Amino acid sequence: MSVQIGPIAETLSQYLSDKNYSKVMILVDQNTKKHCYESVKPLLPAHKVIQIKAGEENKNLETCSYIWEQMTENELDRHSLLVNLGGGVIGDMGGFCAATYKRGIDFIQIPTTLLSQVDASVGGKLGIDFQGFKNHLGVFTLPNAVLIDKEFLKSLPERELRSGFAEIIKHCLIQDATKWKEIRILDLDQQNLGDLIQHSVEIKKKVVAADPTEKGLRKILNFGHTLGHAIETFFLDKGKKRLLHGEAIAAGMIAEAYIGFQKGMLGEDELAQVEEFIYAVYGSVNIDPNDFEAIIKLTQQDKKNKGKLVRASILKGIGDCAYDISLSKTDMKKALAYYSGK
Amino acid sequence: MSVQIGPIAETLSQYLSDKNYSKVMILVDQNTKKHCYESVKPLLPAHKVIQIKAGEENKNLETCSYIWEQMTENELDRHSLLVNLGGGVIGDMGGFCAATYKRGIDFIQIPTTLLSQVDASVGGKLGIDFQGFKNHLGVFTLPNAVLIDKEFLKSLPERELRSGFAEIIKHCLIQDATKWKEIRILDLDQQNLGDLIQHSVEIKKKVVAADPTEKGLRKILNFGHTLGHAIETFFLDKGKKRLLHGEAIAAGMIAEAYIGFQKGMLGEDELAQVEEFIYAVYGSVNIDPNDFEAIIKLTQQDKKNKGKLVRASILKGIGDCAYDISLSKTDMKKALAYYSGK
Repeated sequence: MSVQIGPIAETLSQYLSDKNYSKVMILVDQNTKKHCYESVKPLLPAHKVIQIKAGEENKNLETCSYIWEQMTENELDRHSLLVNLGGGVIGDMGGFCAATYKRGIDFIQIPTTLLSQVDASVGGKLGIDFQGFKNHLGVFTLPNAVLIDKEFLKSLPERELRSGFAEIIKHCLIQDATKWKEIRILDLDQQNLGDLIQHSVEIKKKVVAADPTEKGLRKILNFGHTLGHAIETFFLDKGKKRLLHGEAIAAGMIAEAYIGFQKGMLGEDELAQVEEFIYAVYGSVNIDPNDFEAIIKLTQQDKKNKGKLVRASILKGIGDCAYDISLSKTDMKKALAYYSGK
Repeated sequence: MSVQIGPIAETLSQYLSDKNYSKVMILVDQNTKKHCYESVKPLLPAHKVIQIKAGEENKNLETCSYIWEQMTENELDRHSLLVNLGGGVIGDMGGFCAATYKRGIDFIQIPTTLLSQVDASVGGKLGIDFQGFKNHLGVFTLPNAVLIDKEFLKSLPERELRSGFAEIIKHCLIQDATKWKEIRILDLDQQNLGDLIQHSVEIKKKVVAADPTEKGLRKILNFGHTLGHAIETFFLDKGKKRLLHGEAIAAGMIAEAYIGFQKGMLGEDELAQVEEFIYAVYGSVNIDPNDFEAIIKLTQQDKKNKGKLVRASILKGIGDCAYDISLSKTDMKKALAYYSGK
C-alpha cells in the first residue's frame, strides 16, 4: 500500500500518471463536496460524482446500495477507479463498495479529516455498521493508494481535529514513549500536526504490515477501543450527548490504562500521565453508573473477542502494548467507575 | 484451499478434528434441509441452522441481511465457523456473508449439486446478484475447505444433474482434449461422474492457483459464459422458459464456439463436434431473433469487459482456450443466429 503525504495536486497527478482507467467516479459527502472537491476536480480525468449524506448514521447497507446503484448506472467496469474523498465514513464505506463491486475494483483514499489521515485510511480495514454494531460488515482490502494532504484540515472544525488527535495519542502510547514525552507537554494547538501525521502513519503502516488481518500484533491498534467503542455506541442515539470517535476513544484509553494499572502492567505514575494529558485535552465524558451494565454488554460484540471472553489490548508501560488480555465484567465496571469518578 | 472428495462423514470429521470453533452455524435451504442436513447434523458440534429459500432469485442483499442478522443474534465471533450446505446460491451467498461478517470468519463449502461440486465451490468466487446482474457484488475469498460427497447427488433432479454437467464439458473443452474424446461418445447416464468430478476440480484448482483474482488465465473458465450468462439473465423473468445455469452455458458454448470458428481459431470439424454433443445432451433453447439485441446488451455488464468492449474467452482448438478476445455486436448477433438456426 502506497501512502503519499503532500500536496494533493502533486500526489494525485503522480498516481494517475501511469494509469489508464476506463471510468472514474468520486465519492463525497456534502461537506467534502463543498470544502475539498474543488481542489481535486481539476486533477481528475472526466468523472462522475456520487454524493452521500455525511455522518456515521449513514454508514450502512442502504447507503451502500445507493453507491452500488450509482456505480452500476454509470457502467463502471473492473478497470475503473473509485476515489473516496472524505473522513472515515467515506473511506470505510466507499472502500467497501469498491472492494465488493464486481468482486473488487481499484480505489484510492483521500482522507480529509485528521482522524482518517492518521488512522482509518491506512491499513485496509473497510466496512459499515449493521444493526447498531460498528464496522460489523466489511473486508480487509488495501486501497491502491492513500493520499494525505494536511491542507484539507483547514476546513475542519476544532472538535473534529481534537477527535483525530486521540489516535495520535494512541499511537504514541502503544509504540513510542519518546514521542509521548514530546506531545504530552503541549496543548493541542501547539502540536506539530504535519510531523505527527507522518509519525502515526509510519507506526500504523509498520504494525499493519506485520499482521494485515489482525491475527495478532495488529490488535494493539485497538488500545482504548474495547471500552471506547462501547461508549461510542452507547451514546450513538443520545442526541446532543453523542460523542465523536476520538472523544470516546480518549475515555476508553483512560479506562483501559486503569485496567493495565490494576493488572500490574502499568505503573501508577504512568497511569497518572495518561490521565492527566487526556483529561486536559478532552475533559471528561459524563457516564451514569446505571449505564455501566449496558456499556459492558456492548463490548460483547467486539471483533477481538473469542467466545464469551472480552479480550482487549492493554498497555504494559508507555510505548508498549499487550493484546488478547481477557477482561472480566468486574474489570470493566471498576474501570468505568474509576473514569467516571474523576 | 483444501478440496476433499469422499464420504462427508470422513471429510468433515477430519476437518473438524483439529479445530476449536467458539460457535458453528450451518446455512441451508428447504431442499438441503430436507435431503442433506440429516447426514451432516451428527457430524457437527452444537450448532444453529439458518434456513433460506432456495433459488437464484433469493441470492440478493435482502437474504444476506437476514443471514447477517442470524449470525449477529447468535453472537458469532471471529473464531466461528459457517458451514454452507447447498448448491451455488448457498455457497456463493453464504461464503460472501461469512467473508464480510466482522471482516471475515471461517467458512466451509459442502456443495450438494453437481454444478457446485465441479465449479462454484472451487476457486473462492463469492457473491450475490444486484439489480438483475449476476454476481454483481462479491469478493474473492477462499473457503477453509471444500468437502465434496457425490452421495448428495442422489437427491438431485435429473435436470439439475444435466445442468452441472455443462461445466464438466467446459473443463474438457478448455483444457483436456483427451477427456473430451472420452465423454463425447457417452450419454449423460453413462458418464463416470465420480471420475469427472475429480477431473473438473483438478482443472479448476490448477487454473485458479495460477491466477486467483482473474487477471488473466482464469478467464478461460468463462468460456461459454459471455453469451451464456446473458441468455440466462434474459430468461430469468420468463417463468416456465427460465433456464438453469448449465442449460444457458450449453447454449453459450455453442454460440461462442461458432465465434471461434468465424475468427479462424476453431476448425469446422471441431465446431461440429461441440455442437453435436451439446445439442444431443441439452437440445436447443428457443431464442427469438427479436430478442438478440436485448441479450447482447446484457453482455455489457460482463465483469471481463474493459470499457465498452465485450471480451470473451474463445476456444482455439479443443482443449485450449484464449481469453480477452474482443467481440463485436455483429460477432454476437451472428453467433446467436447460428445457434438459433439449428
